[in-house]
Amino acid sequence: MFNIHSVRKDFPVLDEVIYLDNGATTQTPVPAVNAMNDYFLKYAANHGRGAHRLARQTTDNYEDARDRIADFLNTAPENTVLTKNASESINMVALGLNWEAGDHVITTLVEHHSNLLPWMRLREKGVDVTIVGSDSEGCIDPKDVDAAITERTKLVSVNHVSNVFGSIRDVEKITHIAQKSGAMVLVDGSQSAGHMAVDVNKIGCDFFATPGHKGMLGPQGTGILCIKDPDVLEPTYVGGGTVHAVTTESYELEPSPSKFEAGTPNIPGVIGLGRAVEYVQEIGVEDIEKHEKDLASYAAKCLAEIEGVEVYGPEDRAGVVPFNVEGMNPHDVAMILDETRKICVRSGYHCAMPSVEMLGVEGTVRASFALYNTEEEVDSLVEGVEQITMLA
Amino acid sequence: MFNIHSVRKDFPVLDEVIYLDNGATTQTPVPAVNAMNDYFLKYAANHGRGAHRLARQTTDNYEDARDRIADFLNTAPENTVLTKNASESINMVALGLNWEAGDHVITTLVEHHSNLLPWMRLREKGVDVTIVGSDSEGCIDPKDVDAAITERTKLVSVNHVSNVFGSIRDVEKITHIAQKSGAMVLVDGSQSAGHMAVDVNKIGCDFFATPGHKGMLGPQGTGILCIKDPDVLEPTYVGGGTVHAVTTESYELEPSPSKFEAGTPNIPGVIGLGRAVEYVQEIGVEDIEKHEKDLASYAAKCLAEIEGVEVYGPEDRAGVVPFNVEGMNPHDVAMILDETRKICVRSGYHCAMPSVEMLGVEGTVRASFALYNTEEEVDSLVEGVEQITMLA
Repeated sequence: MFNIHSVRKDFPVLDEVIYLDNGATTQTPVPAVNAMNDYFLKYAANHGRGAHRLARQTTDNYEDARDRIADFLNTAPENTVLTKNASESINMVALGLNWEAGDHVITTLVEHHSNLLPWMRLREKGVDVTIVGSDSEGCIDPKDVDAAITERTKLVSVNHVSNVFGSIRDVEKITHIAQKSGAMVLVDGSQSAGHMAVDVNKIGCDFFATPGHKGMLGPQGTGILCIKDPDVLEPTYVGGGTVHAVTTESYELEPSPSKFEAGTPNIPGVIGLGRAVEYVQEIGVEDIEKHEKDLASYAAKCLAEIEGVEVYGPEDRAGVVPFNVEGMNPHDVAMILDETRKICVRSGYHCAMPSVEMLGVEGTVRASFALYNTEEEVDSLVEGVEQITMLA
Repeated sequence: MFNIHSVRKDFPVLDEVIYLDNGATTQTPVPAVNAMNDYFLKYAANHGRGAHRLARQTTDNYEDARDRIADFLNTAPENTVLTKNASESINMVALGLNWEAGDHVITTLVEHHSNLLPWMRLREKGVDVTIVGSDSEGCIDPKDVDAAITERTKLVSVNHVSNVFGSIRDVEKITHIAQKSGAMVLVDGSQSAGHMAVDVNKIGCDFFATPGHKGMLGPQGTGILCIKDPDVLEPTYVGGGTVHAVTTESYELEPSPSKFEAGTPNIPGVIGLGRAVEYVQEIGVEDIEKHEKDLASYAAKCLAEIEGVEVYGPEDRAGVVPFNVEGMNPHDVAMILDETRKICVRSGYHCAMPSVEMLGVEGTVRASFALYNTEEEVDSLVEGVEQITMLA
């Protein structure tokens, strides 16, 4: 297991606060920040091979980062499109597939808005959308997905881990079920990639979307869309970088991934993300997964023992622990934790209103963990919540 | 006039190379890099008011940056959408307006691919696209735009400054002409914002698109779309951050700018861009404009005096000087300048094939200037080109 105290030195803000809002974004380690500084101060240029020395170095480092990200997710660089965030990745699929009226999409009740709204909007084109329900712990039964499939089902889009419950889907099984009926599968890995070993090839899904700034520890403004067969998807944006020949009458697109990356990309962000992924690899994602799950189980257990506290989600959970204090608004709980103990947690609907409303509550408090969190931090959270229950 | 030697200290790479590729991207000043470091190391969190202290500080600084950018361009924060790059900004308009078959778009021959392809693609929806020609110096006569307008013209989309020629359009006049016929206007300010005073309100255009990483000196991965009336535009992407109420049946979008910014934005990039714009304001954009134009005029004059060198573009030019050496491939010229004098210039089609092909050449060499370039650097370029002509 890695040495957490030496890891924490790479995240200086952890000396100032107890940061338990990793489901929204993780912190970025100093080596990744330094990689971005090197870019800005030593060789910044635009992407594009074959020009001057700065452009060549920029292009090499940007593409090296892509190679590393592809390797980390076990896919190929030409199948790895670099985007702004996971929302962009998912919307690109919703906008880029060739939809016809009567086509069918399946998603679930326990999705982030970014894996719900892009499909709901397709209803305007006559696409039917089925939203499969979950149990009260945010778990999806693959059999329910199977039962929802019709001969017009074109896509099944599910998250890997729920950002509300921390529940983990068997995405390999769901992919198998959908594909044997001829449907494609999108896996929203926003809460999985970097938090647990993710093998896109093994999952077998057609699309895998993730931000760079969560488990992969990269900067905000980075995202990834892995595409098994780039030919099925029309690029959302066209312009500079996506074409190799243009006349006033027509244009010829570049092959993937270039055809999907119009304009100047987030070069510093991608270079920082590449270094952050290297950092995750050095520590070992299996150890990170174990550490985060241990912390989450411990937090869930201790919080559930407090009278007047309800903890949501399944026992087997990723590093996400949602809860409420009876008689208290979740925002107030979060504010008090911040004011009294500098504990940073989210509160509210977590951009997933239907899944929170399923619980019959007006939001939850959510503690979510990363590799750098400690048992002592969980203890402080538990003590803080305990004190709040005395106020309630 | 500003002290160029103290300015240059904020761009350390300038001690290593002669950087004349500012049309592709400028360098980012140290104060902006420091602002990003402060974010990463001291208060990084996700955007979203009302949660813990880090999220509040992040949100405040992100929105302060938006306020500053809006002020710099003379528009309002709610009309200022933060995007990934100018290509995204332009594509958002192409995808978000309500097109009908028979609608008409006007653009010009001397546009970047990112202001050409999104309109050409609309032909698939039955939209007619007219590409207005230019003179041999890359100048557009507003009368030609006027003559192209029909009663179905929905949009006129032109750049402010050509990235190939450095020619400057009278965008205020073009806007006036188009709007009096009921057409909307998009101005692609990729080569103008930050290089010259831009007053979006005074131009009067419906849309103004620009990257953050050119004249505004921000990091790559940032862009802006100013929208006069946000109600005319459907967001391209929907998801987290764009809605305030979601059921499984429907959703309600937030007002602008939130409805256009799905997912976690490039928070460090926007904060860096805000500081970069402050830097430009401190120096004074009018002085920057004069300095860059003086350098470009000087470079164009000196290069044109060399036998065997052809310089393109008009006499009254922004900081862009394209040229060719007779009998030499432009890439070879760029490579030799890099190898012999560490001079960084672009070569090729500059993502604008139709405008370069108009010249009957297979690419050009392009020197492009920013506030930190010096007359001595121009002299070195001119000497370098002179030596190359002796090889040719």
